[in-house]
Order: sequence, then C-alpha cells, then structure tokens
Amino acid sequence: MQMHPNKDTQLCMSLSARPGNFGLRFHNHLYEQLGLNFYYKAFSSQDLPGAIGGIRALGIRGCGVSMPFKEAAIALVDELDDSVQAIDSLNTIVNTHGHLKAYNTDYIAVEQLLKKHAVPQDSTFALRGSGGMAKAVASALRDGGYANGVIVARNERAGRALAQHLGYAWQGDMTGLRPQMLINVTPIGMTGGAEAEALAFDADIIETARTVFDVVAIPAETPLIVHARANGKQVITGLEVIAIQALEQFVLYTGVRPTQEQFEKAVAFARL
Amino acid sequence: MQMHPNKDTQLCMSLSARPGNFGLRFHNHLYEQLGLNFYYKAFSSQDLPGAIGGIRALGIRGCGVSMPFKEAAIALVDELDDSVQAIDSLNTIVNTHGHLKAYNTDYIAVEQLLKKHAVPQDSTFALRGSGGMAKAVASALRDGGYANGVIVARNERAGRALAQHLGYAWQGDMTGLRPQMLINVTPIGMTGGAEAEALAFDADIIETARTVFDVVAIPAETPLIVHARANGKQVITGLEVIAIQALEQFVLYTGVRPTQEQFEKAVAFARL
Repeated sequence: MQMHPNKDTQLCMSLSARPGNFGLRFHNHLYEQLGLNFYYKAFSSQDLPGAIGGIRALGIRGCGVSMPFKEAAIALVDELDDSVQAIDSLNTIVNTHGHLKAYNTDYIAVEQLLKKHAVPQDSTFALRGSGGMAKAVASALRDGGYANGVIVARNERAGRALAQHLGYAWQGDMTGLRPQMLINVTPIGMTGGAEAEALAFDADIIETARTVFDVVAIPAETPLIVHARANGKQVITGLEVIAIQALEQFVLYTGVRPTQEQFEKAVAFARL
Repeated sequence: MQMHPNKDTQLCMSLSARPGNFGLRFHNHLYEQLGLNFYYKAFSSQDLPGAIGGIRALGIRGCGVSMPFKEAAIALVDELDDSVQAIDSLNTIVNTHGHLKAYNTDYIAVEQLLKKHAVPQDSTFALRGSGGMAKAVASALRDGGYANGVIVARNERAGRALAQHLGYAWQGDMTGLRPQMLINVTPIGMTGGAEAEALAFDADIIETARTVFDVVAIPAETPLIVHARANGKQVITGLEVIAIQALEQFVLYTGVRPTQEQFEKAVAFARL
C-alpha cells in the first residue's frame, strides 16, 4: 500500500556523522508494506543539542542515533530504558508528546541473537573491541549469563574499564586464548576500512571455536564470517544485528510488529 | 518519476499551528514529476526557536512559515529578502549551508497577479483587513504603483498603522467608497469560519467595481468570488495566491522552475 504523504504523516529519522541507506530503506519499506503513515529521513548534523531540540520542537516521533552521538545524547533525553542505563550509550530515541525516552536496540538485538542461535551460556568467549558497540555487546553477554569472557583490546585503558565494569578479564591480545565463542566488535573486515581484507581472529583460533560472531555489517559476509562458514562454525552476522536493532526501533516508533516474512523482505530490500 | 528516498534526500517543511495539505501535496507532487530527490513534510510546533534551531541543526533545506509565526520568525533568521523587509513578515525560509534567508512569497505572488491580470495602476481600491497577510497584499499594491487606496479595517489601531505605513487612507467601514478594485484580506467567506456564507463586500459595492480580489483560498470559489463572477467582474482568487506563492517557494528551494503545465497539474493535484 503506497501512502500519499499528508498533514498527519509522522516523521522518524536517523542522526549520524555519515548517514547510510540501510535504516531509511528498511523503515520506509515497512511503512509502505504495512500502510503506516510514516516517513523516515536520514540526517547528518554537527549540532547534537540543536538536532535533539528540533526533534522536540517538531514532534519527530523517533530517532536512530549513530556515531559519534550515542553517548553525548544521553544528557539530552528525559528517560533512559534499562538497555541504556547498563551501557551509557543509546541508539534510539522515542518521542511521546515531547517526552524523550532512550533505548539501546543494539543491546536488545544481541540479547535476542544469543538466544535465537542457542549459544550455550557456559561458552567461553573473547570479545575484541572496547568502543560503544563493544559495551553494548559485552553488556548483553553479561546480562545473558555469559560469565566466562575476556575483553581483548589494544586500548588498555578502555579495555580494562569495560572488562572491570562487567566482571570480565582483559587482555591486550589473544595470547593463550582458545575460547568457544569469538566476537569481533572492531572495524576489521569492514568495507572501506584500513583492514577490510583482514581476519579479525587468526585461523588457528577460529579452528578451535564453536561460534563466530562478527558485528561488522558491511559487508554481511566479512572475511571472518566467510572463513568461519567455510570451516563449519556457527556464525552470527552484523547484518542480523543491524536488522534486528532496526526492527526493534520500528516497533518502538510505530507500535506495530511486522511478521517474520515482512521483516525478512524489508531486510532484503534494505540491503540492495 | 518516483524517487525512492535515500540518504541524499533533502527535506523541506512547513511550520504552522494547524498544518493543511495543500503545500505538502503541491511540493511532493512536483518533486515526483521532476525527479527531484526532495521530500516535503508539514509540521506543527509550539516552540518556534526550537523548530528554527532544528532546521539549522538538521540541514532542512526550506521551510514555509504560516500563522502564528510569520513575524516572530524574523528575529531567528540571518538575512531578509526585500520582500520581507517591506512588511516585517516572512512566509519562507531558505537554508543554504546553515545560512537562513527569509522571503515573503505571498508578497511576490500578489505582485505577479496584479501584473498577470493587468489591473490598471490608477485603479482606486479598498482593501479589507489589517493582519499579516493584509500587510503583504497592501505592500505589493503600493510597490506596484497602486496609489489610490483605502485600508478598511474595524481594528482602528492596526488599520491606521498599516495605512499610514504605506501612504494610504484608513476607514472603519466602506461608507462612501465605490472603488474600482475590491480586495478581501479578512476570513469572511472562509470554510469553517464564523462568516463562511457572507459576502466580504455588499452587492451594490461589487456592482460598481471592475475587479474583485479575494485572498481567501478555501474554498477557491468564495461567496464573494461566486457573486463577482456572476456579475461579470474580473476576479483574482486566493487559490491563485497560494499556488503562486508555493511555486515561488519551490523555485527557491530546488532552483528548478516547473513549466506552466507542470505547475497547473500540481495545483490541481494539491487541491484534491
């Protein structure tokens, strides 16, 4: 059903330094499929308070927040969902009559994916990374009961802080580690990055793992995922993370949960 | 050509207490017809500084401004076009890389319509009204060389001020006036208003006039316009005003001037 815009159309948006197409294609496709009178627009900004003020003043219904605003935006909203309080990082703002509530649907997505893929809670894991997304993933692991983890980060200060905050160990590299689950939350393998062709973990470490989880979403088939699949490992991809986090945003904004088929079609459309 | 929204889509918007559908239908229809990657959204707000701050922070390309913001918005922009300086009232903001320039396309539209309909400059006229729109219309008359006018307004203070500002006479009612051009800039005849069925000028006064100009746009065929047409008068309608003012906004936002045929189709579409 194609909606013609009218005066009652509600706007949702994303805010990031460099907007992509996935979110807006995903949301707009589902609005159209479900006949919802919404429109989704990607914005970039260098003025976070002005942008959040605009969301309030214009009654913009929802906002996806990306780098580099996920932490600074916290001071500008009215209420934090549990998913944000755990990690001091939001990626979603829902505006209900001027009251802004923040969520972290990355956290929610990782929590869901660990259950969906039935990763055993007693799995040992190593998580590479120490940035905002690493915080969200590690918090979801901790809250999901995955107690046997090591945060692996060259940035000792950030790595130690994250590990300590969640009760994990920290190491500067993978020396001596052969965990059952490997989790990449660095840009290694990302299209356009400095290490786009690199494996985020060495082949011999992948060999002894059971599950490989790569948060990099572009491409969905990173070198790490390709290698892990070829070696028969269970894989969880960054595409699954961005798709589910976008789905949960959609539900928060519209109050409507698409069917699994509608969701999958929207992901396929948004990836093009 | 149907454009799919993407990350490069530019947003234009309107800001008013009670948004209508005409502007957004007009602009979105032309974007689609001309294959321009724009989207137009109608917003209401109670926070004008926050809304203008949002336009800056989010890089919103253009904004149509309606009641009750046309005067207060002047202090919030960076530059005033001549069309605004004359009347202290804007209806259009164009955002070029964060620099906000204000225009009054109502003024521009009235100026164009007087030429298009070839109303003789030496016509005597009476203009009923003393609000923001009356200011725009009266200023366009003055700047168009129409020197023989009377501002007719029950609000003596506002009426006298407007008349004095532009070098016209003021009267509280039509007593003794039989002008060649009658101009209604009050809500008389407007759908949903208290005087929707009333004629803005008495029938005997219309009888002796040559031209009847009604700024009320909804309906396009007000009782005044219907009566004037039936009596063979030259008419200028409020629909012409809102259509041309929207067209001039479109040109300012996009840099593209539609053909006359495209313009007329957009007006027909937007009226539905």
